[in-house]
Amino acid sequence: MTRTLIHGGLVITASDEVHADVLIEDGRIAALAAPGVLTADRTIDATGKYVIPGGVDAHTHMELPFGGTFASDTFETGTRAAAWGGTTTIIDFAVQSVGHGLREGLDAWHAKAEGNCAIDYGFHMIVSDVNEDTLKEMDLLVEEGVTSFKQFMAYPGVFYSDDGQILRAMQRSADNGGLIMMHAENGIAIDVLVEQALARGETDPRYHGEVRKALLEAEATHRAIRLAQVAGAPLYVVHVSAMEAVAELARARDEGLPVFGETCPQYLFLSTDNLAEPDFEGAKYVCSTPLRPREHQAKLWQGLRTNDLQVVSTDHCPFCFTGQKDLGRGDFSKIPNGLPGVENRMDLLHQAVVDGHISRRRWIEIACATPARMFGLYPKKGTIAPGADADVVIYDPHAEQVLSAETHHMNVDYSAYEGRRVTGRVETVLSRGVPVVTEREYTGHAGHGVFTPRSTCQYLN
Amino acid sequence: MTRTLIHGGLVITASDEVHADVLIEDGRIAALAAPGVLTADRTIDATGKYVIPGGVDAHTHMELPFGGTFASDTFETGTRAAAWGGTTTIIDFAVQSVGHGLREGLDAWHAKAEGNCAIDYGFHMIVSDVNEDTLKEMDLLVEEGVTSFKQFMAYPGVFYSDDGQILRAMQRSADNGGLIMMHAENGIAIDVLVEQALARGETDPRYHGEVRKALLEAEATHRAIRLAQVAGAPLYVVHVSAMEAVAELARARDEGLPVFGETCPQYLFLSTDNLAEPDFEGAKYVCSTPLRPREHQAKLWQGLRTNDLQVVSTDHCPFCFTGQKDLGRGDFSKIPNGLPGVENRMDLLHQAVVDGHISRRRWIEIACATPARMFGLYPKKGTIAPGADADVVIYDPHAEQVLSAETHHMNVDYSAYEGRRVTGRVETVLSRGVPVVTEREYTGHAGHGVFTPRSTCQYLN
Amino acid sequence: MTRTLIHGGLVITASDEVHADVLIEDGRIAALAAPGVLTADRTIDATGKYVIPGGVDAHTHMELPFGGTFASDTFETGTRAAAWGGTTTIIDFAVQSVGHGLREGLDAWHAKAEGNCAIDYGFHMIVSDVNEDTLKEMDLLVEEGVTSFKQFMAYPGVFYSDDGQILRAMQRSADNGGLIMMHAENGIAIDVLVEQALARGETDPRYHGEVRKALLEAEATHRAIRLAQVAGAPLYVVHVSAMEAVAELARARDEGLPVFGETCPQYLFLSTDNLAEPDFEGAKYVCSTPLRPREHQAKLWQGLRTNDLQVVSTDHCPFCFTGQKDLGRGDFSKIPNGLPGVENRMDLLHQAVVDGHISRRRWIEIACATPARMFGLYPKKGTIAPGADADVVIYDPHAEQVLSAETHHMNVDYSAYEGRRVTGRVETVLSRGVPVVTEREYTGHAGHGVFTPRSTCQYLN
Amino acid sequence: MTRTLIHGGLVITASDEVHADVLIEDGRIAALAAPGVLTADRTIDATGKYVIPGGVDAHTHMELPFGGTFASDTFETGTRAAAWGGTTTIIDFAVQSVGHGLREGLDAWHAKAEGNCAIDYGFHMIVSDVNEDTLKEMDLLVEEGVTSFKQFMAYPGVFYSDDGQILRAMQRSADNGGLIMMHAENGIAIDVLVEQALARGETDPRYHGEVRKALLEAEATHRAIRLAQVAGAPLYVVHVSAMEAVAELARARDEGLPVFGETCPQYLFLSTDNLAEPDFEGAKYVCSTPLRPREHQAKLWQGLRTNDLQVVSTDHCPFCFTGQKDLGRGDFSKIPNGLPGVENRMDLLHQAVVDGHISRRRWIEIACATPARMFGLYPKKGTIAPGADADVVIYDPHAEQVLSAETHHMNVDYSAYEGRRVTGRVETVLSRGVPVVTEREYTGHAGHGVFTPRSTCQYLN
Repeated sequence: MTRTLIHGGLVITASDEVHADVLIEDGRIAALAAPGVLTADRTIDATGKYVIPGGVDAHTHMELPFGGTFASDTFETGTRAAAWGGTTTIIDFAVQSVGHGLREGLDAWHAKAEGNCAIDYGFHMIVSDVNEDTLKEMDLLVEEGVTSFKQFMAYPGVFYSDDGQILRAMQRSADNGGLIMMHAENGIAIDVLVEQALARGETDPRYHGEVRKALLEAEATHRAIRLAQVAGAPLYVVHVSAMEAVAELARARDEGLPVFGETCPQYLFLSTDNLAEPDFEGAKYVCSTPLRPREHQAKLWQGLRTNDLQVVSTDHCPFCFTGQKDLGRGDFSKIPNGLPGVENRMDLLHQAVVDGHISRRRWIEIACATPARMFGLYPKKGTIAPGADADVVIYDPHAEQVLSAETHHMNVDYSAYEGRRVTGRVETVLSRGVPVVTEREYTGHAGHGVFTPRSTCQYLN
Repeated sequence: MTRTLIHGGLVITASDEVHADVLIEDGRIAALAAPGVLTADRTIDATGKYVIPGGVDAHTHMELPFGGTFASDTFETGTRAAAWGGTTTIIDFAVQSVGHGLREGLDAWHAKAEGNCAIDYGFHMIVSDVNEDTLKEMDLLVEEGVTSFKQFMAYPGVFYSDDGQILRAMQRSADNGGLIMMHAENGIAIDVLVEQALARGETDPRYHGEVRKALLEAEATHRAIRLAQVAGAPLYVVHVSAMEAVAELARARDEGLPVFGETCPQYLFLSTDNLAEPDFEGAKYVCSTPLRPREHQAKLWQGLRTNDLQVVSTDHCPFCFTGQKDLGRGDFSKIPNGLPGVENRMDLLHQAVVDGHISRRRWIEIACATPARMFGLYPKKGTIAPGADADVVIYDPHAEQVLSAETHHMNVDYSAYEGRRVTGRVETVLSRGVPVVTEREYTGHAGHGVFTPRSTCQYLN
Repeated sequence: MTRTLIHGGLVITASDEVHADVLIEDGRIAALAAPGVLTADRTIDATGKYVIPGGVDAHTHMELPFGGTFASDTFETGTRAAAWGGTTTIIDFAVQSVGHGLREGLDAWHAKAEGNCAIDYGFHMIVSDVNEDTLKEMDLLVEEGVTSFKQFMAYPGVFYSDDGQILRAMQRSADNGGLIMMHAENGIAIDVLVEQALARGETDPRYHGEVRKALLEAEATHRAIRLAQVAGAPLYVVHVSAMEAVAELARARDEGLPVFGETCPQYLFLSTDNLAEPDFEGAKYVCSTPLRPREHQAKLWQGLRTNDLQVVSTDHCPFCFTGQKDLGRGDFSKIPNGLPGVENRMDLLHQAVVDGHISRRRWIEIACATPARMFGLYPKKGTIAPGADADVVIYDPHAEQVLSAETHHMNVDYSAYEGRRVTGRVETVLSRGVPVVTEREYTGHAGHGVFTPRSTCQYLN
Repeated sequence: MTRTLIHGGLVITASDEVHADVLIEDGRIAALAAPGVLTADRTIDATGKYVIPGGVDAHTHMELPFGGTFASDTFETGTRAAAWGGTTTIIDFAVQSVGHGLREGLDAWHAKAEGNCAIDYGFHMIVSDVNEDTLKEMDLLVEEGVTSFKQFMAYPGVFYSDDGQILRAMQRSADNGGLIMMHAENGIAIDVLVEQALARGETDPRYHGEVRKALLEAEATHRAIRLAQVAGAPLYVVHVSAMEAVAELARARDEGLPVFGETCPQYLFLSTDNLAEPDFEGAKYVCSTPLRPREHQAKLWQGLRTNDLQVVSTDHCPFCFTGQKDLGRGDFSKIPNGLPGVENRMDLLHQAVVDGHISRRRWIEIACATPARMFGLYPKKGTIAPGADADVVIYDPHAEQVLSAETHHMNVDYSAYEGRRVTGRVETVLSRGVPVVTEREYTGHAGHGVFTPRSTCQYLN
């Protein structure tokens, strides 16, 4: 049994920053100790570095079928890129197709992932078709560790659930402990605006941002909150981008409701300015909810500081500019929705520490600890504490790097952050004690990562 | 040409209370004058009485087909009862059936009303089926004086419009000057709760109040507000009963949005206590939005005082207890929705003056002037001013009466206010100068009342 | 007894706009009548003109001693200018000096005004020194028609009352029906900022706007509201200029509290841009509360539309640029606080009608009817109705004029609106039936105006 | 060098709950390790127990002179009682007297505490007299580890600062990193109500609660927030008891302001019902801010859950019922203000865990970690992590106890929680590794505890 000691770093968790050595045995954290207290067979020198929990990205879409194509990262390429970016757990979305069962969808996603992942993974379940059978399947899935269910208030005819279906699923989750994750946009109204825009000849990517109005995100957010309140259920709103939606979450939380919100790096660092880039370049930034005008960013940062937003995930869903995004030339509504980002999240949020938006502890909290707790992975994931999985990142806070498609490891032909210089870089990544990235060399392999069943949300006691 | 002088009363309008004589010529107000200034052929003594504008009830449903039966008041009986109650104008709702045009529905309602009314009347149009043809018809109707359109967020399969249809109609009204009136309840979610309640054996009338939750009224109110904001259109929310919905209106108005709210006497004077009356008596009080717990009343009165609510209409839609309401024995969802009230509104609101909830001027404002202005009838209706129609009520503020089905004139076998003693009573009612009620004797006739085209909402610009 | 008929105009009141003739007898409105119904000895042709109630300016300071000088308009010059501007009633502020009684101050102001006024006037009482004697005097003043009392949260050592004195006066007014008017600025905190600014050498007029922070107006507004709530008293906040203060008023009104707010034309039309004018020109715009950045204007207009603000008064308090304002060269805190404006209010607010900020009826409501009702002058003043004083303005809505010190009638050497072109102009003004301005010629005389006792606030019942 | 191992317990910190052994060396935490990883000379068995950081009580008043008497706990008795209750650090308040310097006051408090304390302690400084000298002294105190300054908006003539003094102190703290702690009650207005109540013969203890109105706490809280906003300074509001004050804090935090709030066990567990106990028993519960009606409790718990309140301290300030509290017989305003509580806090908050109000981690966060961070003691105090002081409590979550003056260790003749049964009990307490309480036997000694200088607030970066 090998004992490894990470020595000399600053260990940062959601609540502590201590100079400590981290002892790893059998793939788990065996101890945290003051420097010098412990010895080990093997020592990794982390002097001058941060030692942080591996990132937990609670929102990815590997190989997602969307708009006639598939997200360009497989579980293999996507989890490898995640590891490069300091993320050691992803929670991806299995998809129920309308008319089919949850089980069938979940099995399909298990098949895609199994044996292919560089890091551990779990699944949320997208529920596209609420009915009596589906509701019963939800109970079973909770028991086998798929404890969260995503519904869509947008995309009628594909993923869309009406308010009655949402209410039923929420009622069920109130009983079985599941957590409803909501794509909160009034898609019925938005589709009218899409049709009208196209009829006016407004086909460029930037119109994607104009028709998917902030008010219609805020409206749906409010509606989901009230439905959850009626159902007596908690609610997790995914990819919040509009400041008006943050305000609805803040209002609900001030009322004491168990309502949570996630945002993504693209909303914190990009804006409608990107959507308006000429020569169809804006298509690179088409995702839903859409990017918003720059003034929304400050309110998102504020929400992260005041805990009105609790999690930053990526909604990683890459489509190549050439061959995929260009399906929507001449009709923005046909541009596959999604951005690459699973590799960039930890770095971008560290940059936010450098920029003064958040503290170091809050960085770890929103990127590791809270997503782990929110989705029942704690304390296995998301922290550095005795007994936790040894998912550990050694992070150099002083190194500089330039984000670019030329150097990134995601299987997509562009970077949403092309040319952006950031301070901080992942050096070494352990997954359950096994080096996946070692001093910026990839040492992992497909199949190391395993499906990780999850308990229910740990913010509801 | 006869000149009639109403002498010696206290003339109350939305903004003034003056001891003045009112001169009537040719069916119009010819002058207001200090006592003694004017003489006339015929004098009506109003000493010690109030002289007020005839009431404008902007929300009635005569002969409405609903749930397999018809509202029990015809235009003849209903407008006669209205006159007895001091109301000289009603605005009723013509109904578009799904798959049919607005014109067809409007014509049908014209046919029901024409030649039968004791007092003047106008029409709103219920839009059940928004499509390209309907939208064009809306323009035409505005031109012919039907300037307001009601949509329903409840009753799927009957009157229900989805958010896309609502948005389209609002956009159209933003262009043509029409005003969207909204039944704001999340009917899709409510129908789930109805089904579940019935499955649990909860069939009594009181469950009607429990499933149609205040939060789902507030939610729909908020949603309608945001859709209107996206459309750049004004909004009028009908029969607001939940304090949470009032809060949404107040919030929108604080933001400067052109959003208006109506409540009804039943929400101000009755409560879920009535819905819970035993022996199916609760069915008498089944209407939608439903009656709420008593604590909501204080917030509705407050909303009327702070102008977060602007209008009190009746939503008069009577169904007899015997033979109609009892269609819902054993299944509250089959109880025809609606209450009688067109005769009681002016008296109940005067009682509110006596009770100190509102001032005399505010009584006239919410019951006469504002509904007239809101729906384009001003200054023809809703005030006493030179040039206005001589729709005038002489009101005895000191007389006492007991409300009862035995004495009321509505064609329905019960009173929602049975046995309630109120202070104040209509003595004499003129419609365009013609006595319809004369010292508590009916002197009107069917056919006196005429269709009154309306201009657009006078609260915008 | 002469009967005068104003013929052919559009009569506008707070609630009606009707083409009507106005009959005047014995200084009062005898009748409003449809054109042609009435005849008279003398007819004034108002064809194409507005016939409106004379303005009620509820906030003026003629001859006010302030900072070692006196406001430059006497009651004679100031009321003459008011008449020129279409205002037929002012309510000025009598001042209690610390250590002296209310009676003494009131008598002094009666002496200044009596026999000198062109139009009717009333008094509010500034209470600078709350004690047992003062509180008793308040009761007496209410009885003799001085029913409102101003306190200051600013100007320590001069007018300042501490929170205990304010609470006591509010409690007394809750009993005797008086209305507390509040200058809401945290003067204790502001004086610290003044001292610090001067110590930094920030002496120009624009620093007046910087130290008197919007947040400190909002704070004081909130504090006054809560003190009034504790006392069970209504509250009227004078000269609201900060949007944050409007928000506090809106919040209180949403809670149902009897709280009222006044703003002034200078806050609606001028801004800190004016305060920053070079060569000490900014001193012309020094008043307290100060002018705010331009973005506040939109929120003030919105507040006037939503009735979170109810009154527009002038706070007329003129000091000549030469010889008075320049007392503050080198030290903005020594610039006498105040602007001229009594002559411009009706025109500027009409311009707001032209610009689409408010409706014609709202113009009359905020400038005539509401101030009259707020301070117990209704229906004598503020409306055109039988029995009301014949204070009537014939207003040409199409005439254009340029505001300028060269043409105005106020006794001050500059205009705050120099060179501003506005549409609309006063043609003829009657005060109790007597022509004071006749087709733009002054026909009034000092002494025509009389002290007008007031009943208590008519918005509380 | 002795190594001690606490073995077998559940280690709970603000963010983690892990079964782990805790190694202690040289008075510090040397390591946390999975069970079995480490050995030591001496082992404390914590099987089945919680192992938690020692409590940090950021608000005590040992030996405080107040109202002519002194708080009955000396530093010796009070810190011993604190240790018994699982608290290992207190921050007490040194007092500046008006006319004297901060230094003089601080020296006096050092003299009282030095050599007498069972556990470590720090000082806040009460600033009663802001002037140029005081402001300079503030800078010096920050440098020597007294980094927080309390001001009072109540108690004029004793501790009271006016808004100008508050603003100046806040400006200074914005510069020197200090944190202003505010007693937020409008004492000027309250004293008027006190005088009036006594004049009416309302002398019983319950009137203490009636005159110190919730609205006047909320008002002062809002005012302090706005003054801090003007100064650009953070703010910590002590002993928040009114739900309206919580609402003001929530509003400010939603705006992104660095505003913090503390409440106390008495506000969470007691109410005006206690103040109304007969036979002067209510005097036992007289403190300021006062106890509130029971409905406030739910909002305080909610605030603790939503992080609108961040800290629970005791405001421990005991006065014996006999001989001290009875100074106020016949005049509630003469009752010394304060309750005993330093011994009960950890237990009462554990009871809140049992009752479901908060989670275990939140218990530790509000009672240990956040107060340590708020006042610059982290990570020395408030957590269990390598390098931290070995201030550790072994807590039995299943033991039951009954709170009583008969068994407590505070030097006061009554318990505010007499007879209350709670689940959970402190078993063993270490202070810097030294056993102070050992299996419910006192093993500490006066003088073990040392003054602990603090860095500045760690929530501002």
